[in-house]
Amino acid sequence: MTEDDFELVAAPMYELDEGEALLRTVYLSMDATVRTWLDQGEGYLPAVGIGEVVRSSGAGVVVASRCAAYEVGDVAISLTGWQEYAVVRDDLFTTRLPPGTALRPAMSVFGATGATAYFGLLEIGRPQPGETVVVSAAAGATGSLVGQIARILGCRVVGIAGTDEKCRWVTEELGFDACINHRTEDVAAALRRTCPDGIDVYFDNVGGPILDAVLRRLAMHGRVVLCGAIAMYNAAERPPGPANYLNLIARRGRMEGFITLDYWDRFGECTARLAEWAAEGRLRWREELLEGLEACPRALNMLFTGENRGKVVVQLAPDPT
Amino acid sequence: MTEDDFELVAAPMYELDEGEALLRTVYLSMDATVRTWLDQGEGYLPAVGIGEVVRSSGAGVVVASRCAAYEVGDVAISLTGWQEYAVVRDDLFTTRLPPGTALRPAMSVFGATGATAYFGLLEIGRPQPGETVVVSAAAGATGSLVGQIARILGCRVVGIAGTDEKCRWVTEELGFDACINHRTEDVAAALRRTCPDGIDVYFDNVGGPILDAVLRRLAMHGRVVLCGAIAMYNAAERPPGPANYLNLIARRGRMEGFITLDYWDRFGECTARLAEWAAEGRLRWREELLEGLEACPRALNMLFTGENRGKVVVQLAPDPT
Repeated sequence: MTEDDFELVAAPMYELDEGEALLRTVYLSMDATVRTWLDQGEGYLPAVGIGEVVRSSGAGVVVASRCAAYEVGDVAISLTGWQEYAVVRDDLFTTRLPPGTALRPAMSVFGATGATAYFGLLEIGRPQPGETVVVSAAAGATGSLVGQIARILGCRVVGIAGTDEKCRWVTEELGFDACINHRTEDVAAALRRTCPDGIDVYFDNVGGPILDAVLRRLAMHGRVVLCGAIAMYNAAERPPGPANYLNLIARRGRMEGFITLDYWDRFGECTARLAEWAAEGRLRWREELLEGLEACPRALNMLFTGENRGKVVVQLAPDPT
Repeated sequence: MTEDDFELVAAPMYELDEGEALLRTVYLSMDATVRTWLDQGEGYLPAVGIGEVVRSSGAGVVVASRCAAYEVGDVAISLTGWQEYAVVRDDLFTTRLPPGTALRPAMSVFGATGATAYFGLLEIGRPQPGETVVVSAAAGATGSLVGQIARILGCRVVGIAGTDEKCRWVTEELGFDACINHRTEDVAAALRRTCPDGIDVYFDNVGGPILDAVLRRLAMHGRVVLCGAIAMYNAAERPPGPANYLNLIARRGRMEGFITLDYWDRFGECTARLAEWAAEGRLRWREELLEGLEACPRALNMLFTGENRGKVVVQLAPDPT
């Protein structure tokens, strides 16, 4: 995936039908899953076709409305796509935010990002106090929340990240118990050292050899939460799967996938709990802010090169919140 | 694994300590999991060391007892190992059978074999009426029971086996809805044809490319029961894992392993239900009977070459039941 795969296009403004509203996009959330939507194979949503707008989460302000659910001035998050204006409806994938909600944290921590960490960890991983939780892409938007939530729930947390700076951030600032730099350390040996009793829950954002190394160290009845596989999305040929999946038998382990959009109707519950933890100073996050539609391809690619520090957000218009 | 890896050894008869009984082995059950116990890596039980008796399920008759739980003449199943006499105790891994129990069906269908099919399918696969269940090694001892139980529970059942004769047996005699010969058919295409709505439950006995093909066809919220991987146990190097594990994300799927021995204390519940179905003529099985300790290596290998027809049992002594 390079910038040449994208084209910046001017198009006529949308004319609203009854039941529609027009959202001016303020922020776009850069999520690794967007990369999977660009593949033409079977996915969990239809592939984005050549010439179509790139599908993406975003947040914005209602600037025109022919829909009873929205008034001009409302702020909402939706699947806006990579565009400056988006048509929204009163449907599952658009959520009007309570007046006074700050838009940028709704992208970085309280929206789909937070829901991915929260529901993936709690519903699929089901960590118990005292258990060891490992998370990859630990300094990323999702991974850093997963680790902090697991800490709040009383778990030992070991991160895996790609630079020493990221490892320092999650251990010194976010309170992770340890962090492994997978570019400079032998991950298998480091997992043996940092997880002497095995790994009870692994929140997998990367796939590839790291998933394989974790499967080898799985504790009895361990759970692998399949959130994503950024190590695999850009491969021209599908890389081999994890040979150590066989360890799921000996360890009575479970490996299970999930899709955040399935929990969209429970985002409120999640946001409330995350906001409470944030207000108590127990959740931190950081953002990589880029500007303008033309920055989107580079911004998305940062998730795969790892050059970002925290949640990657692209701003398209002034933030009124 | 060849016959040269085994040695037939004469040893002095056991002298019983208090709390022990002596079982004369009548039947040995040939199970693929025995092959994993011979590997020196980490498994779910300690590896069988060089020079040790091969660990194995068996059934026999008590011929001497210094244990209150057993009287001479009792029949029991236990982890006898590949030996003509075994010391047993009143512990989790020895089960005294009710007087009048026939020993051979206790090996073929009502013991660990039935429990593997029953608990794996019900506890891990959790099939619902109307769902599509696929099982590999479908004409094997475990697979043939899995398919029949799934049919009894109201599922559509598709088997995968290695000969046309096996496919005919499971469809014509056991009532499977379809069966794929993986040696002569394109498994992926055959799965598309026989499972048009995808695969809800896959009971995996083989691993390898068949597991990968099934993962590709997994239905939404599909479950993969990891029972074994006979395609992989004899490989000199560990073969690659299933690249399509990624489909577990899009399909919100679950892949989970289990070990039959964990359900040992519930074997009674399972045996009672299987016996009821068998009495109603709803469960069938067939056996490949070999004789003598020296036949064991060849008997175990049959599970990997696929030349057996049904449950492989080795008889060491006259059956008094």
